[in-house]
Amino acid sequence: MKTIIGIDLGGTNVRVAKVTDSGEVLQELKSPSYGLEGPEKVVPNIISLIKQIDGYKDCIGVGIGVPGPVDTVNKVMKLSSNLTGFTDYPMAKMIEEATGLPTFLDNDANCAGLAEAIIGAGKLYPIVYYTTVSTGIGGALIVNGKLVSGKSGYAGEVGNLIVDPYREPFNNLNPGASESEASGRAITRKGQAIFGDKIESAKDVFDLYVQGDEEAKKLVDQVTTDLAVMYSHIAHIVDPHIFVIGGGVMKSKDIWLPIMQEKFKKLVHSGMRDVIFTEAECSEPGILGAAMLPISNGL
Amino acid sequence: MKTIIGIDLGGTNVRVAKVTDSGEVLQELKSPSYGLEGPEKVVPNIISLIKQIDGYKDCIGVGIGVPGPVDTVNKVMKLSSNLTGFTDYPMAKMIEEATGLPTFLDNDANCAGLAEAIIGAGKLYPIVYYTTVSTGIGGALIVNGKLVSGKSGYAGEVGNLIVDPYREPFNNLNPGASESEASGRAITRKGQAIFGDKIESAKDVFDLYVQGDEEAKKLVDQVTTDLAVMYSHIAHIVDPHIFVIGGGVMKSKDIWLPIMQEKFKKLVHSGMRDVIFTEAECSEPGILGAAMLPISNGL
Repeated sequence: MKTIIGIDLGGTNVRVAKVTDSGEVLQELKSPSYGLEGPEKVVPNIISLIKQIDGYKDCIGVGIGVPGPVDTVNKVMKLSSNLTGFTDYPMAKMIEEATGLPTFLDNDANCAGLAEAIIGAGKLYPIVYYTTVSTGIGGALIVNGKLVSGKSGYAGEVGNLIVDPYREPFNNLNPGASESEASGRAITRKGQAIFGDKIESAKDVFDLYVQGDEEAKKLVDQVTTDLAVMYSHIAHIVDPHIFVIGGGVMKSKDIWLPIMQEKFKKLVHSGMRDVIFTEAECSEPGILGAAMLPISNGL
Repeated sequence: MKTIIGIDLGGTNVRVAKVTDSGEVLQELKSPSYGLEGPEKVVPNIISLIKQIDGYKDCIGVGIGVPGPVDTVNKVMKLSSNLTGFTDYPMAKMIEEATGLPTFLDNDANCAGLAEAIIGAGKLYPIVYYTTVSTGIGGALIVNGKLVSGKSGYAGEVGNLIVDPYREPFNNLNPGASESEASGRAITRKGQAIFGDKIESAKDVFDLYVQGDEEAKKLVDQVTTDLAVMYSHIAHIVDPHIFVIGGGVMKSKDIWLPIMQEKFKKLVHSGMRDVIFTEAECSEPGILGAAMLPISNGL
């Protein structure tokens, strides 16, 4: 049995865990991350937490999930809006030097996808495409248990996929980007534009749909079409064995997922229609996926 | 030095070659394929050709490129419009039994992409996305020298990617599918709709563009936008290190490729804009890529 140190580093908190290669958490520590106080404060705190893990030196390596794109070759973040000063900062190298453990870095969506591919809903399948339909939309490609992060860590940036080029752009994304049209935030925004403040989340829109509201039906029809186009893009480019979907919008999956799948089938070749769509099942995909990074990298 | 039998099986001809692992063709035989006469005629002919190759028994394996989607696990074609009776036919198994050599099957676009990734324009890069912009549009994903063919061989079916959902559908593809909008056949069709019979190929449209024709400018503007959207889809989903582009439309690359690349840069995140677009360089990608299949599969 291998053990690995998995680290889920966010702007507010950091969690450090000792995890087995089958995904069992043996020990977990949590602390403020001091994410806005700069790496000089954040990194020594992480190193101190690692050293508090029993037998940390016997672990095969350290994996860190971070919120933002990562250059996985040079092991640095390329953009760090929630972690001040981390762009190009050699955190992984410093942790390697302080602990003697090989250290790997990837973004949190990639980590969540890796967890699902190795120990979660995708574990039996060679090609897994993970997507999270949450406040935003992100994703990850995992082939034979290894993350395909891309040239600069942008594989899985499916929130910027164009589903309809004639829509208005939002938040520096493309016009008609999937995240602007079908994320939790987008569904809420569109719901509020129709129903006003009684819509507080995507779930409120789906509840109105269930009650038979005609406007809600039109909105769900548009959102499911947009998601079907997004998944058809992914299917034609990598033809995964399974789509694993996480994120809060999956709370309403019984409403939208079957409609979306029917539309998806009309947008792909007949031999592609039986691809599986299933819900993510890891309870802590961030930290488990971070712990799987050394394994994904061949350790 | 490893040697491999590579086979390029088309509806009209079949070529069988002995190839080194660095892509040198040592011996090559060509024959009619008898593609419309059924596998009972086609397969014994191929086996006979293999046995005419000097020292075929010392090769590490056989790779076959075929025109259509392939189930690479069961090594059978899933659709064979140019090869009568080949859907689910156990050609690979029969060749294995007759020659004693492990035999692998994949579609011809995947083979061409594999050749480019291992010995062609993409050979220095971990993630290669090959596309052919020819009569149709196809593609292939190669990660660390291994083809990612997909669940049912549909990875790389980028000709069916929607670039604009409001266009008219053609040939059972999606409305606004890239192949219907920006392939050689599509550019010719659109050119003929404007200029009539004086357009015989995509090149004629590009020539009119160079002469400053306003209608040709509008058409090239639309085609380059559509291709930029297609490549932005691929980039956000797999973030390749390099796009290798083959196919006849590349004859006019000096005209359209720089325009397309500028549009692409506006459709992706800033860290993705430096991805390389380059022309395919293998002279015989079909047979060379077929020969690389056993290597891609771990031999």
